[in-house]
Amino acid sequence: MSKFTIAVHGGSGTILKSDMTPEQEQGHLDGLQAALDAGYGILERGGSSLEAVEAAIVILEDCIHFNAGRGAVFTKKGLQELDAAIMDGKNLQAGAVAGVRNIRNPVRLARAVMDTSNHVFLSGEGAEEFAQLQNIATEPDEYFFSQFRYDQWVSIRDSDDYALDHSKRNIEDLTVEADKKMGTVGAVACDGHGNLAASTSTGGMTNKQFGRIGDSPIIGIGTYANNATCAISCTGHGEPFIRSVAAYDVSCLMEYGGLTLHAAVAKVVYDKLVKIEGEGGMIAVDAAGNHALLFNTEGMYRGVRNNAGLNETAIYKV
Amino acid sequence: MSKFTIAVHGGSGTILKSDMTPEQEQGHLDGLQAALDAGYGILERGGSSLEAVEAAIVILEDCIHFNAGRGAVFTKKGLQELDAAIMDGKNLQAGAVAGVRNIRNPVRLARAVMDTSNHVFLSGEGAEEFAQLQNIATEPDEYFFSQFRYDQWVSIRDSDDYALDHSKRNIEDLTVEADKKMGTVGAVACDGHGNLAASTSTGGMTNKQFGRIGDSPIIGIGTYANNATCAISCTGHGEPFIRSVAAYDVSCLMEYGGLTLHAAVAKVVYDKLVKIEGEGGMIAVDAAGNHALLFNTEGMYRGVRNNAGLNETAIYKV
Repeated sequence: MSKFTIAVHGGSGTILKSDMTPEQEQGHLDGLQAALDAGYGILERGGSSLEAVEAAIVILEDCIHFNAGRGAVFTKKGLQELDAAIMDGKNLQAGAVAGVRNIRNPVRLARAVMDTSNHVFLSGEGAEEFAQLQNIATEPDEYFFSQFRYDQWVSIRDSDDYALDHSKRNIEDLTVEADKKMGTVGAVACDGHGNLAASTSTGGMTNKQFGRIGDSPIIGIGTYANNATCAISCTGHGEPFIRSVAAYDVSCLMEYGGLTLHAAVAKVVYDKLVKIEGEGGMIAVDAAGNHALLFNTEGMYRGVRNNAGLNETAIYKV
Repeated sequence: MSKFTIAVHGGSGTILKSDMTPEQEQGHLDGLQAALDAGYGILERGGSSLEAVEAAIVILEDCIHFNAGRGAVFTKKGLQELDAAIMDGKNLQAGAVAGVRNIRNPVRLARAVMDTSNHVFLSGEGAEEFAQLQNIATEPDEYFFSQFRYDQWVSIRDSDDYALDHSKRNIEDLTVEADKKMGTVGAVACDGHGNLAASTSTGGMTNKQFGRIGDSPIIGIGTYANNATCAISCTGHGEPFIRSVAAYDVSCLMEYGGLTLHAAVAKVVYDKLVKIEGEGGMIAVDAAGNHALLFNTEGMYRGVRNNAGLNETAIYKV
């Protein structure tokens, strides 16, 4: 087997050491490591990148620290509405869901859309009906509750403060702002056969309304995988990522522009996204097992592990 | 002013002359011409490509012959659920809606999302709430009814025949199949200032269920515009178009691969989409006012008009 690699993220944004308790830091790092280990174990046993990213995302969705699955943010109506996508770089098959409620692991629903429907992208109650037919596990509202997210939401729920706001704020507000915009989890992997896969899962923005769909569940935008180029999962301000077709842009810069993985991700994250105020980051791997974990914000919860001995997690800029 | 051009489509698929009455043919051609003329009039008066594509799409949405707005197909539940997107190539601003009901002109709602929200993509009831706040015109269910679409739906509503099916069928079934998969309207324009815009609107597939979102409303997939490259609107099997990130692929083949507009559209429509059974077509313009209207199916309702004297509409392969 050649080099195999898994990388994960847990969102990006104005993540400052001064805002975090040691317990919060450790909780995030432990979640990232558990996700890496779950995916790596599968790759080590000769499993596929697709299985590895799904297993990693399930861990992150189940971890209350991240804005996906359990612990997701509250919408304007005080609900959790979840989005997820998964893509197999071997055959360009993909599945995605947007705006689903009470689904324990949205990534498993996205996988079922890919495997057992003729569709790629299902939404809302219709997607929940499909989940029921597929015996996808559900949980009551309480399961998804976290006090931290609830307090966040209470602090802004009576405002229309749901989206981009470039006004200066104090640190407390910035924390809310950052978190509400950029919480997402993602995983990308290259297995020992050179097959790539990517997956992303999110609760979206705190106080989101109007059935807003962000970049995460959109194939080519928040999530993309193609054995010929790369596997990508994005985190950040969804809207500029959509307008940039961010994930597929990296793939095209490699395929048509001849850039390396690192150069292509750097071009999009440090240059193209910055020009349209697209704050966030990306994790990416290519079919040789190379990785790039880049972001243009203060921090990105992230981790990478490969069979060349690398195994690390981090939060802040280095 | 330099060369200005508008192109429109009304869907692609197994559109055979043998299946069409002269009245049906003329109804479609008249609708396409009216849309071209509405957009062209705006361009001729020095208006923007954005205004031109919106005006053209409104005409096609109001025309009962096309699967968008009035005359849209019926979902599994006997409703019309509409999707639309619009993008401004000058600044990469975009707006899109999916799964909205009773909105007379979904393109106007997509435009309102772009102009007055901080979001790009809204869905379902949330998008309808936003429409209400924006005073977007609504119509009762009866407005959207067409006997032809209703009869189509009745013929398959009790089946789960809602998606891709590669089995051989008789001509009658093929007509239903083709229509249910590929009805969509689109417009792209280059104005006298070299600004590009694109818009797409659809009712999706007959008998669609599970809140399925197709390619049409997704920026970079069914709809894309960028002054640096091209404006694109797609029509076809939504799922392969999503997996191909079809519209942005054309843009990248031009920007990073150095292809002309025609060569880039041909590469995607005749080669890349065909390899993953992606039947359909695209209309495209570049900033020099060149156009390409290509499809890999039996037909595509289409038209193009420019200030070099071209003014034509067509349905079948030539």
